[in-house]
Amino acid sequence: MASLEALLRPRSVAIVGASADTAKLTGRPLAYLEKYGFTGDIYPVNPRYETIGAHRCYPDIAALPHAPDAAIVLLGGSRVLDAVRQLAVIGTRAAIVLASGFGESGPEGRARQDELRHAAGAMRLLGPNTIGLVNVSEGIVLSASNALVTDEIIAGNIALVSQSGGILGSLLSRAQAAGIGFSKLVATGNECDLEVSDFIDHLVDDPATKVIALYLEGLRNAKAFQAAVLRAHAAGKPVVAFKVGRSEAGARSAVSHTGALAGSDAAYNAMFKQFDVIRAERYSDLLDIPLALSRGRRLNGTRVAIITSTGGAASLLADAAGMLGLETPPPDAATAATLKALAIEGTTLDRNPIDVTLAGVKPDTFRAVLDAVASSTTYDAVAVVLGSSALREPETAGAPLRACAAASDKPVVGFASPDAPHLIRTLNLAGVPTFAAPESCAAALAALRRMGNATPVAGSAKSTPALTQEIRALLRPGALDEAESKQLFSRFGIPVTREVVARTPDEAAAAAKTFPGNVVVKVLSRDLLHKSEAGGVAVDVPPADVAGVCAEIAKRFAAAKGGKPDGFLVQELIRGGIELILGFHHDAQLGPVILLGMGGVAAELYRDTTLRLAPVSRGEACAMIDDLKTSALLKGYRGRPAADVEALADAIIAFSDMVVATGDVLQEAEINPLFVLPRGRGVVAADGVIFVNATEEVAGVSTSEGGSS
Amino acid sequence: MASLEALLRPRSVAIVGASADTAKLTGRPLAYLEKYGFTGDIYPVNPRYETIGAHRCYPDIAALPHAPDAAIVLLGGSRVLDAVRQLAVIGTRAAIVLASGFGESGPEGRARQDELRHAAGAMRLLGPNTIGLVNVSEGIVLSASNALVTDEIIAGNIALVSQSGGILGSLLSRAQAAGIGFSKLVATGNECDLEVSDFIDHLVDDPATKVIALYLEGLRNAKAFQAAVLRAHAAGKPVVAFKVGRSEAGARSAVSHTGALAGSDAAYNAMFKQFDVIRAERYSDLLDIPLALSRGRRLNGTRVAIITSTGGAASLLADAAGMLGLETPPPDAATAATLKALAIEGTTLDRNPIDVTLAGVKPDTFRAVLDAVASSTTYDAVAVVLGSSALREPETAGAPLRACAAASDKPVVGFASPDAPHLIRTLNLAGVPTFAAPESCAAALAALRRMGNATPVAGSAKSTPALTQEIRALLRPGALDEAESKQLFSRFGIPVTREVVARTPDEAAAAAKTFPGNVVVKVLSRDLLHKSEAGGVAVDVPPADVAGVCAEIAKRFAAAKGGKPDGFLVQELIRGGIELILGFHHDAQLGPVILLGMGGVAAELYRDTTLRLAPVSRGEACAMIDDLKTSALLKGYRGRPAADVEALADAIIAFSDMVVATGDVLQEAEINPLFVLPRGRGVVAADGVIFVNATEEVAGVSTSEGGSS
Repeated sequence: MASLEALLRPRSVAIVGASADTAKLTGRPLAYLEKYGFTGDIYPVNPRYETIGAHRCYPDIAALPHAPDAAIVLLGGSRVLDAVRQLAVIGTRAAIVLASGFGESGPEGRARQDELRHAAGAMRLLGPNTIGLVNVSEGIVLSASNALVTDEIIAGNIALVSQSGGILGSLLSRAQAAGIGFSKLVATGNECDLEVSDFIDHLVDDPATKVIALYLEGLRNAKAFQAAVLRAHAAGKPVVAFKVGRSEAGARSAVSHTGALAGSDAAYNAMFKQFDVIRAERYSDLLDIPLALSRGRRLNGTRVAIITSTGGAASLLADAAGMLGLETPPPDAATAATLKALAIEGTTLDRNPIDVTLAGVKPDTFRAVLDAVASSTTYDAVAVVLGSSALREPETAGAPLRACAAASDKPVVGFASPDAPHLIRTLNLAGVPTFAAPESCAAALAALRRMGNATPVAGSAKSTPALTQEIRALLRPGALDEAESKQLFSRFGIPVTREVVARTPDEAAAAAKTFPGNVVVKVLSRDLLHKSEAGGVAVDVPPADVAGVCAEIAKRFAAAKGGKPDGFLVQELIRGGIELILGFHHDAQLGPVILLGMGGVAAELYRDTTLRLAPVSRGEACAMIDDLKTSALLKGYRGRPAADVEALADAIIAFSDMVVATGDVLQEAEINPLFVLPRGRGVVAADGVIFVNATEEVAGVSTSEGGSS
Repeated sequence: MASLEALLRPRSVAIVGASADTAKLTGRPLAYLEKYGFTGDIYPVNPRYETIGAHRCYPDIAALPHAPDAAIVLLGGSRVLDAVRQLAVIGTRAAIVLASGFGESGPEGRARQDELRHAAGAMRLLGPNTIGLVNVSEGIVLSASNALVTDEIIAGNIALVSQSGGILGSLLSRAQAAGIGFSKLVATGNECDLEVSDFIDHLVDDPATKVIALYLEGLRNAKAFQAAVLRAHAAGKPVVAFKVGRSEAGARSAVSHTGALAGSDAAYNAMFKQFDVIRAERYSDLLDIPLALSRGRRLNGTRVAIITSTGGAASLLADAAGMLGLETPPPDAATAATLKALAIEGTTLDRNPIDVTLAGVKPDTFRAVLDAVASSTTYDAVAVVLGSSALREPETAGAPLRACAAASDKPVVGFASPDAPHLIRTLNLAGVPTFAAPESCAAALAALRRMGNATPVAGSAKSTPALTQEIRALLRPGALDEAESKQLFSRFGIPVTREVVARTPDEAAAAAKTFPGNVVVKVLSRDLLHKSEAGGVAVDVPPADVAGVCAEIAKRFAAAKGGKPDGFLVQELIRGGIELILGFHHDAQLGPVILLGMGGVAAELYRDTTLRLAPVSRGEACAMIDDLKTSALLKGYRGRPAADVEALADAIIAFSDMVVATGDVLQEAEINPLFVLPRGRGVVAADGVIFVNATEEVAGVSTSEGGSS
């Protein structure tokens, strides 16, 4: 039995620290197990009782008749560690630790959490600082949450995994009110062992789960998350995530542009896009989008029919839908004729929203309207607006709506315009996803469209390119100068400017004569990050002037930094290209993130940048280019020549290869500008910088003599 | 008695077409008047009854004992017109027409609506196609809306004016559930006479109204709206508007960039910004923002303390608040010490959100926490997150929250994390604005901050500049060519390039010699809008080459358009400026809209543009410059010279003056590029176009000989 199976479908459960008082938190787990009909063995552990209810109570863990599949530890303080150690010793498969005061509370707590992890040994742990989990599909509750003090938890096919127990309770409460059911509910707490990703991975194989909803605060293992999400995608199970931390985006600073522009939340956005996770933008969307997806239907196009009894509310919905790229075309001639034949008094049914003035309509007629619209090839989905008439006579609209939703294979959804919690609940329970806000209804339809669109997700990483001895020799710790950086870029296949390193102004002048025309002259120094600002760059220099220009540059360098520069770089002059930035940095949670952006001032003032996690596939590289607001410029704007977009995609992939191959050796890197030349002429890295980590031996990159492998 | 006073506070009301059957729509108005305690005279009019209830019923309008202050017309079809005519004849002050089938139903309906307006004469009309209005403050209901079939309408200080009756019903239903009260409720329907603006204007003087909430579909009289909103602002009454039609933005097309970039919704956004109307982005915000504002308190800074019993939900709120520019700093040392002294078990109160783990806290302690935070100078507002513990023990948090809100003069608000409609209702009724969504709570706090920020609003228009005879002579119908357009710009004080109009290549060559260096040569034609695309522009031409270049240009013109161009324009070459676009077009609803944007590709690819309605004050001109994402470029970016922003503001004002002075004569105009030179060197219009309307005599601009006036 897999460890998660032991937690979600245990045959036996020990409750360590159980109480007979169901008013107490420690009394709840046993009460919940019984209330929801757990059929396995229950072993309360507490030296103060002989029995609790019908169950024999054991004085300690050692006294248990045999090792339970799962255990809930209700103890606090130092007794938690002992209990976990003993549970592990007797061979318990998995334990849930509710106590707080561990990793979330500071350095001492983190040390205690490490001890806890160690005490568990081979036994899997959920928590600490969790409210536990609920297998709703099979009526198994391993939790002390007071959010479960409810009549009955509605069963459904949405699994919710939350890194916060409070949010799990909040969402459960909201879902119960709205008639939205769950298959599994899991709060992962501090994730000292089991993480969100472990549960996603498990839920992919759970036949009761069709949609996975996540509340995320931050991932401890991004790779495991990505692998689990890819499996969910392959199984046709959409993953919807709400992640907090958006307003911290951009707070971090880094040495180069890449780091400065790519805050952590932006990296999460990139990952969600890349791995086809639907991001819930509003809190309520974390229920509303899974609700819509849980019906299993998808939008195969963007055209939505809005049927309404109240004009204003239909405008709200049409407007919100339009904001998300959905369309509301009028009925086709055949459908309009069918509707007209229904002869509903006071209506003109040739527009969309289709206003049937529900107050005057009989259920049969309304059903006929719905069916005519749902079966029209003009529409990919039907949204019904329920006005105040639906409050007073819920079945006039409700019965036809349910019937149409059952008969059609297109998405059929509802939006309630007045305050109508009971109507919403009833329709949701009957399988018609119904929403309280026009924006939620639109967001849900957009999610159905997105899933119907079958976006390809990031392919598995291709084999990592070899790190040759030659390349390793370039990886000296600290900042590499421009010439060194470009050597590394070049090794991975990124074209760079032709250039010569000169140690003196005279050497530079001699080198300049080997170029066909004017050149660029730059100071060369590992210590000077912003060459231009320091007067260290001269563009379009005639070869005859190069020695003088170098002398000037050296003078300015001496004034700024003291001493002499390492040398000078004499470089071909690039004309007629479009300037981009290509860079990467390590996100603290998500690993290496590749940034592509427009160069010059555009990248900073317009934030015209896009991110992807490495490795970047060709499809993703092309998608990155399309993401840029200025992609039109690259593709030939207003009669300008198209740029070499193919070569740009090659460069992105090559850059990604470099990032993957060097593992943790590189701290960050940036090519700025990367000139994209007209089609057929490729790209050229004209400047760049690389920061190599100071550690000598880094996982994944051996410094031993081994040649290429 | 003013007409609106007659509608909102009538001493007598005629109900034309009243029924004794309260189950019918026609039975409702009388029943509502009685139910809500109307103390004036009620005159039912219906030949089929002698009496209705205790009221004498009149056979027709002519039989009424005297003219009522207000009348509700419940009739349909052709009888509406007769009733309105008769009501006007006897001197009724104002009538409400509920019937639909007028302007909203097509050309025939529009004709009927015109008849209706005519029939009303001096009598004011609300409607047709309205559900009427409710003076909640004084218990006077002039409506047949079934949305009023409720126990009691909660009285408050928010006035709601809606252009849709259905939306009014929807919002009333939602507000009643949430415990949000209204002072007045008005549905304006087709606005054949009385409009939203009339009611705003009236509500400014209504002592029962503190906040005005609007549901807008489109304004019929933008000037009246602006004037009313300015009065509301002066009276310290915030105006909050939800406007549909956002997704139609950009759908309209126009000849030049200005029209193409400035869709109608963008113009509304500009107007809302300019006239300090708070735009509700989500439907629910149209209640939630007025709710917060209705307490009369404002945020005097951006710092919010979040006090919570549940960590996850506090993160939601902090995140949403941060997205709107609010801050959540940790407690200052003194406050932290006060909190620490309260010694709440298991808490660390030195962070924000301040997590008090409410389950373990007594009301007294919680009150002490709230007071310590509310009285701290570190915070401008206090937001309290209510978790599931507040559901079970509402008074543990509720009583201290109410007490703190009453004692403090800072905004104190609540956010309920679980589904908690009753809790929200109770707290709202008790004067603690409480929200169901973290985003709503954040939006409400942001609105309190905005109002606290005392944004200056657009000043009244300064005197319109004179239209001299000289200027009038330039206003020939159709497209003006570049030289003609620039003459007009120049007359209004906008500097333009020095240039000479030449009829032949030789004249052009001669003209070029009068310039100090190389010149720009352009084709001159009223028929050619896109000179560059047609090869009609040559830049940086040595004077010696001008004749040849003109010949080439003429050849290309002949190929493209046939025939000869009108001439050539020889122009000074501008270097070193930043290119902007300055334009205007007439918005169908809002009148002339001024656009300022970055030039080149930026304006289109990045949509880096901003709009204001004309006239534009100096303050607004400066705000327009600041709006641009590239404003940093203008102000000296990364050591580049700062541009002449003062001169740019002058040019915007001059352009606005031109637009105002010419009234409806100009259809649209654009300067592109407008070069902004380094500080002290001004701006130069280097190209531009003006479209003059074909009508010879336009309101506001006389073509008679009158000289300047």
